[in-house]
Amino acid sequence: MSSNLYLGLVHHPVYDQRREVVTTAVTNFDIHDISRCARTFGLGGFYIITPLESQVTLVERIISHWSHGEGSVYNPTRKESLSLVKVSRSIDEANQEISRLHQKRPTRVATGASPHPDCIGYERFRALLEDRETVFFLLFGTGWGLTREVKDSSDYVLAPIEGKGYNHLSVRSAVAIILDRLLGDRMK
Amino acid sequence: MSSNLYLGLVHHPVYDQRREVVTTAVTNFDIHDISRCARTFGLGGFYIITPLESQVTLVERIISHWSHGEGSVYNPTRKESLSLVKVSRSIDEANQEISRLHQKRPTRVATGASPHPDCIGYERFRALLEDRETVFFLLFGTGWGLTREVKDSSDYVLAPIEGKGYNHLSVRSAVAIILDRLLGDRMK
Repeated sequence: MSSNLYLGLVHHPVYDQRREVVTTAVTNFDIHDISRCARTFGLGGFYIITPLESQVTLVERIISHWSHGEGSVYNPTRKESLSLVKVSRSIDEANQEISRLHQKRPTRVATGASPHPDCIGYERFRALLEDRETVFFLLFGTGWGLTREVKDSSDYVLAPIEGKGYNHLSVRSAVAIILDRLLGDRMK
Repeated sequence: MSSNLYLGLVHHPVYDQRREVVTTAVTNFDIHDISRCARTFGLGGFYIITPLESQVTLVERIISHWSHGEGSVYNPTRKESLSLVKVSRSIDEANQEISRLHQKRPTRVATGASPHPDCIGYERFRALLEDRETVFFLLFGTGWGLTREVKDSSDYVLAPIEGKGYNHLSVRSAVAIILDRLLGDRMK
């Protein structure tokens, strides 16, 4: 059975350093690191969200290289993780695709490094994921994070990862930690 | 008080895809992602281990750019995380530096994606870390992982992160997950 959790990596709308709404460029390392995490933890899919056609083409070329091209022979484990990757032009487009696949609207959960008034914790979200009838779409922002509007219009906002007075993890590290908190077999 | 945990990212000796012992190239993303994790979880230091002088120079240039150069103005959070980064020519050299700093030999813990006969689990290591008198040096291999000799000569080998039939995480993701399992405030 495929997992009821989908991940979206948002390149627009996100903030830049000055809190202006921008479109960030797709980072090659994000595609590989996050798809490997998605595959490790058995996610249903990983949506790379960008409105820029040039970036859509770039992602499709990278996936093709590792899935059918020379890369598929050099490193077949990438082919396996990249089979989870899809590209969408917007959060809504990805949301609609998940809705079509499951015949129901996914529950949208936003993430971020700063606290939000209605945050839910990891234990609670882990418990929610046990309801296999509900489909979840977990969003991560690139750049300086998801906009306030994306957070406010989500069903939940997940609590930030609390560091020792420093919370500037890369989005790749945040995804790894959060998926492990939600789905990992942690205390072996 | 500085943490009693140090991290080493090993570029030699590690295996390549054919299980031959090689020296891998330093990856820029490793430096940033792992130093941010080290800073987030309050580590004592992060050693980049490479015997190649050209790579030592490269790492020092990257650190200098973000600590004193233009990068320090553009993104000061990098300066903060990179202050934890040191470069060593070998595992032994890093080990000796930690020994000098703490006036005692660190307990060396190796990591890897495949099981080892004498693995210790996360709960046990978390408990060991509570003994503030002991200093730990946690090693991660790049490429296809730490050699058998490095594992066998370590005091402990940490259990692999178990995925759903797939264990090919990037070293960046593995570091993030393992540090969170050992030091994170996970179930909030």
